[in-house]
Amino acid sequence: MAATANIGVVGLAVMGSNLARNLASREGNTVAVYNRSREKTDTLIAEHPEAGFIPTYDYTEFAAALTKPRTAIIMVKAGTGTDAVINELVNVFEPGDIIVDGGNALFTDTIRREKAVRETGINFVGAGISGGEEGALHGPSIMPGGSDESWVTLGPILKSIAAVAEGEPCVTHVGHDGAGHFVKMVHNGIEYADMQLIAEAYDLIRRGTGKSPAEIADVFAEWNTGELESYLIEITAEVLRQVDGETGKPLVDVILDQAGAKGTGAWTVQTALSLGVPVSGIAEATFARSLSSHPEQRAVAAELPGPQEAFQVDDVDAFIEDVRLALFASKIVAYSQGFDEIRAGAAEYGWNIDLGAIAKIWRAGCIIRAQFLNRLSDAYAATPDLPVLMTAPYFVEVFERAQAAWRRVVVAAAQAGIPSPAFSSSLAYFDGIRADRLPAALVQGQRDFFGAHTYKRIDKPGTFHTLWSGDRTEIEAEDTH
Amino acid sequence: MAATANIGVVGLAVMGSNLARNLASREGNTVAVYNRSREKTDTLIAEHPEAGFIPTYDYTEFAAALTKPRTAIIMVKAGTGTDAVINELVNVFEPGDIIVDGGNALFTDTIRREKAVRETGINFVGAGISGGEEGALHGPSIMPGGSDESWVTLGPILKSIAAVAEGEPCVTHVGHDGAGHFVKMVHNGIEYADMQLIAEAYDLIRRGTGKSPAEIADVFAEWNTGELESYLIEITAEVLRQVDGETGKPLVDVILDQAGAKGTGAWTVQTALSLGVPVSGIAEATFARSLSSHPEQRAVAAELPGPQEAFQVDDVDAFIEDVRLALFASKIVAYSQGFDEIRAGAAEYGWNIDLGAIAKIWRAGCIIRAQFLNRLSDAYAATPDLPVLMTAPYFVEVFERAQAAWRRVVVAAAQAGIPSPAFSSSLAYFDGIRADRLPAALVQGQRDFFGAHTYKRIDKPGTFHTLWSGDRTEIEAEDTH
Repeated sequence: MAATANIGVVGLAVMGSNLARNLASREGNTVAVYNRSREKTDTLIAEHPEAGFIPTYDYTEFAAALTKPRTAIIMVKAGTGTDAVINELVNVFEPGDIIVDGGNALFTDTIRREKAVRETGINFVGAGISGGEEGALHGPSIMPGGSDESWVTLGPILKSIAAVAEGEPCVTHVGHDGAGHFVKMVHNGIEYADMQLIAEAYDLIRRGTGKSPAEIADVFAEWNTGELESYLIEITAEVLRQVDGETGKPLVDVILDQAGAKGTGAWTVQTALSLGVPVSGIAEATFARSLSSHPEQRAVAAELPGPQEAFQVDDVDAFIEDVRLALFASKIVAYSQGFDEIRAGAAEYGWNIDLGAIAKIWRAGCIIRAQFLNRLSDAYAATPDLPVLMTAPYFVEVFERAQAAWRRVVVAAAQAGIPSPAFSSSLAYFDGIRADRLPAALVQGQRDFFGAHTYKRIDKPGTFHTLWSGDRTEIEAEDTH
Repeated sequence: MAATANIGVVGLAVMGSNLARNLASREGNTVAVYNRSREKTDTLIAEHPEAGFIPTYDYTEFAAALTKPRTAIIMVKAGTGTDAVINELVNVFEPGDIIVDGGNALFTDTIRREKAVRETGINFVGAGISGGEEGALHGPSIMPGGSDESWVTLGPILKSIAAVAEGEPCVTHVGHDGAGHFVKMVHNGIEYADMQLIAEAYDLIRRGTGKSPAEIADVFAEWNTGELESYLIEITAEVLRQVDGETGKPLVDVILDQAGAKGTGAWTVQTALSLGVPVSGIAEATFARSLSSHPEQRAVAAELPGPQEAFQVDDVDAFIEDVRLALFASKIVAYSQGFDEIRAGAAEYGWNIDLGAIAKIWRAGCIIRAQFLNRLSDAYAATPDLPVLMTAPYFVEVFERAQAAWRRVVVAAAQAGIPSPAFSSSLAYFDGIRADRLPAALVQGQRDFFGAHTYKRIDKPGTFHTLWSGDRTEIEAEDTH
């Protein structure tokens, strides 16, 4: 077989097939495909003759079909299957070739794999791909890591298939080795927070105003014309408007209220904890899902006492506007926390990540795509080393408009007994980070008391310990933090 | 050397020395000691002739000093040092002997070590020890894992040195391999939450009433005579009463408000995320510490807008009582979440953990020791498989008394702009778990829309997907999440 394909795809389930079709549809690409079971390959070839795919049935044939440097994108379920495919490709590829993992790998696995594959002279690229099946087919947001060398070949190919926002393809070389999968992980964490905030907004409006899901769909559709414009707000309106064909009820009332999760939210929070970055909005969103998924606990906890009075807001329009502002303010907090995590991850792992470029490639193709991301890239363009995203002038202006409303919403939720973990946590983070003085000083005092963990002083350098079980004088101490 | 010691201690820094002295002070124990550097050993021997220590200067000598089955407690800093000491002991010990790691090891390391050491026929026991230096000397709370065989020998020795609560030693055989370190980890996580809740209570009272730290010390001392009675409340009064010798100011006002952490809080949350257990109180407490420790961010965020009006409560005594009730209710949530994590960990790792026994061994010796733990053991005695601790009758009664006050406190904090992440998160969890219906249904709808993640229905079994990009009918689907 003559090598005629400039790109190959391994793994032809829905995401892989759609990505292969996307690649094949772009000028200049010829796509070789391979799948472990022959059937998937044959079906794809039969159903999409327009794609001009080159079918292959073993790895040797696959490698032979690719022009050099050979470039292959693996689209298999993340895990040990990925390692198996990598091993097969390493056997048939040569130094300078490029293996791309387009699955949702944990970034530390990607770092490990990149290091191992690099020894062979082959390039390994972990690339986060967001946008679901539709995105894969029509244009995802792509977050590739890997070497600069690989980017030379891979960049044009990925640019050809990525979503386009304001004329710019939604792909950038995020950084070396695991940087791409790291950023994709944080993208998903932010997505969790964004979805939970929307869910809380819906719940508050529904319980506070008695509006139907269809009426609330109108509210979200209206919001989607303003500063909250985003894919998630848009589809929320669609979901709320959907009527169940069987019962005639709103679909949202028929769906079991137990949210699933595939782990990337948990990864984001676990990683943030290791990095010392507070991502409380993402954490609360992740926990809200796990709380919802324990029906045996919820059944017994249903007996716990709540407020006596029914919740009914007086001014419906004013309340909805308050909720809108609370949602926007909380959303800014979630993004600020997420970008904090990317910054901390870049510092920890030595990645040179352009935060503004990340905001830009999320403007289209991915699940959290939104106009508002232009404001994030503006903020980093103006101040590349911005220590806290939400202190950029545009966001400060939002907080000035929104904070009183935000507080009213958190107050209403607490009084009414409506769970709003993400709204209230975001507000607490906001009030914490802007506080002139935190009771963390008391925590340090306690830690010094029971564990001689020492403390620092506001008025001079050094590390100190009070002899709590002695005469309670203060001594200079070794820094044991 | 004739073998005359029934127990040995390796690692003679403060914790190790104190534990060795504690062991030596109990009837029937003779203690062999070893430290990598000879000086520490000689100093301990010289300063504590009353202990009758048997000093040893290499591992062979150490092993020779111990009667069989040899039993040694390692008290070195957790990490690779622990592995090195284990390897040395394995070389000189024999099948049936017992190696105890008394450090703060991550439970997964303990599982790994236990498995490796077991191959040699030697028993390896990971034992959590809480109580700090004073506890080690006078009586800690001890949480040992490991085999049943090791417990036969080790049990009486650990019972001899543990703290005593109402006549019962604060030690129990928690479960096999890593169970002890797992439970110690969660103990520390709960400790984080408890401390953060106390810090928020202090902050609210101070800002709302203008009371001085010394006056608030009186409040905590008073609380310590009631249902909040606990070591942490007690030492909070001590810390708040402390006056800085140099400035004459309250010490808490001189301590830098940046809280340190040694990682066990983060471990607890990371593990809970893997287990799917929402431990939002512990997470918020951990994040509050990391937020406080980023002065460069706090400096720029200080400009973010807060509420206009000054915070001043009208009825000081009523507000303080509200805060007390909010603290108690939130604390119950934190413990309930922590015990949830232990239950989930036991299920995941196959440990047979008696939750009531855990509550009992925390009643004395450890940092979170409190009267209130009797109520937890009562709850599990009455209902061993209680799905949610906080639904036990005693706690329901507390919530009935406390929930209105709790809501008022969260409301006051939100209105006043005082960060209360742990109070508000605990309330949101409480309202979430008791909710008849959660907006998780909307989240499932969103997930099905963008990712075909499917959903379940409230009215029939099965897994479903709406053809969102098709004709929007519903189809039965494979359960993909």
